[in-house]
Amino acid sequence: MSLENKKKNQIVPEPALRRMPCYLSYLKLAQKDGMKHISSTFIARDMGVDPTQVTKDLSYTSIVGKTRVGYEVEPLIEELESFLGFTVVDEAYLFGVGSLGKALLHDHGLKQFGLKVVAAFDVNPSIVGKIIEGVPIYHIDEFKTMTQAGVRIGILTVPVENTQEVTTIMVEGGIEAIWNFTPVRIKVGDDVVVQNTSLYAHLAVMFNRLNAKNK
Amino acid sequence: MSLENKKKNQIVPEPALRRMPCYLSYLKLAQKDGMKHISSTFIARDMGVDPTQVTKDLSYTSIVGKTRVGYEVEPLIEELESFLGFTVVDEAYLFGVGSLGKALLHDHGLKQFGLKVVAAFDVNPSIVGKIIEGVPIYHIDEFKTMTQAGVRIGILTVPVENTQEVTTIMVEGGIEAIWNFTPVRIKVGDDVVVQNTSLYAHLAVMFNRLNAKNK
Repeated sequence: MSLENKKKNQIVPEPALRRMPCYLSYLKLAQKDGMKHISSTFIARDMGVDPTQVTKDLSYTSIVGKTRVGYEVEPLIEELESFLGFTVVDEAYLFGVGSLGKALLHDHGLKQFGLKVVAAFDVNPSIVGKIIEGVPIYHIDEFKTMTQAGVRIGILTVPVENTQEVTTIMVEGGIEAIWNFTPVRIKVGDDVVVQNTSLYAHLAVMFNRLNAKNK
Repeated sequence: MSLENKKKNQIVPEPALRRMPCYLSYLKLAQKDGMKHISSTFIARDMGVDPTQVTKDLSYTSIVGKTRVGYEVEPLIEELESFLGFTVVDEAYLFGVGSLGKALLHDHGLKQFGLKVVAAFDVNPSIVGKIIEGVPIYHIDEFKTMTQAGVRIGILTVPVENTQEVTTIMVEGGIEAIWNFTPVRIKVGDDVVVQNTSLYAHLAVMFNRLNAKNK
């Protein structure tokens, strides 16, 4: 295995991974401003983090900064996009075409970042059979017949009361990574990747901070 | 100030706050199953966390569990909903009606959790003047004339290159809490609450875990 592939397949700490899209967007802005090189000190100052953290975070990629010169902006952008998996489009299924599920179908940004929803599943007869933003909506029972398509990623946006049941169906059907937008802690085997993104939990944090500020 | 208000206005650690909506959804399911009381041990087991953590997290609310009996389910649900700020509807402005901004306008779930978007702002002439899901879209210049409405929360979904500029406009116009969906680390004064939610950062974490699994 090449160094580059080894780098890509290592487990990177989540805080570092979460900062990387911030570096990426920062670098794209710098590139627009005509910058060719940039130092970790400069990035750190603008982003309000420690320079050693910038160096450490970026060391997970195969790009190395040079003394005095810093990082070359363009190759670092390309490397980060590839490292973060944004350059290869992965196909995904969406489970649950309620309010949030529908909203995600409207977000074309996902595709830019490497995720393309190719089909969605629900049980609601008023939505099954429809096409939203080019994505066909099937009954969840049909998923069982579509497990040979090699889709490994599932986006979970079903109601709370169906979350675990649908999770089990997803895993039995070959889904290997679940992007869980529900507030439910789903139970899966160790071999299934779960990424929890509860928008409402973030909302709760924001409300708390806002209330604490005004006490 | 009453104990209850004091509790609500304290700064609760973010990990605890983020777990609370999980407890809430768990308790609602338990309630549907007819449960009247529930112990922290039971919650902990089902959610895969430590019982002492459950007790500690819930101690930030004004509800106290009883020995042997545990927590009363219904009052705990009500307390959590109120504690998390989901029962009072806060008004918010949306800044940036691109793909993700539009998607959020389609998500009626936000209102259920206490956030109601009452107006949106953009600069794109093809969208300014329209109404999406009942929300009128204004030109960003009009925001400056609308700062007396008492709206304190702003959702930020503009393109990366406009993020800081729009942030400054928001803060000057009286926005006190910014829900930042962009991958940009925005610069604001200490008195402004920022909640970062980068969906694409979560996507990057998921891709990394999935790739590491298949090495």
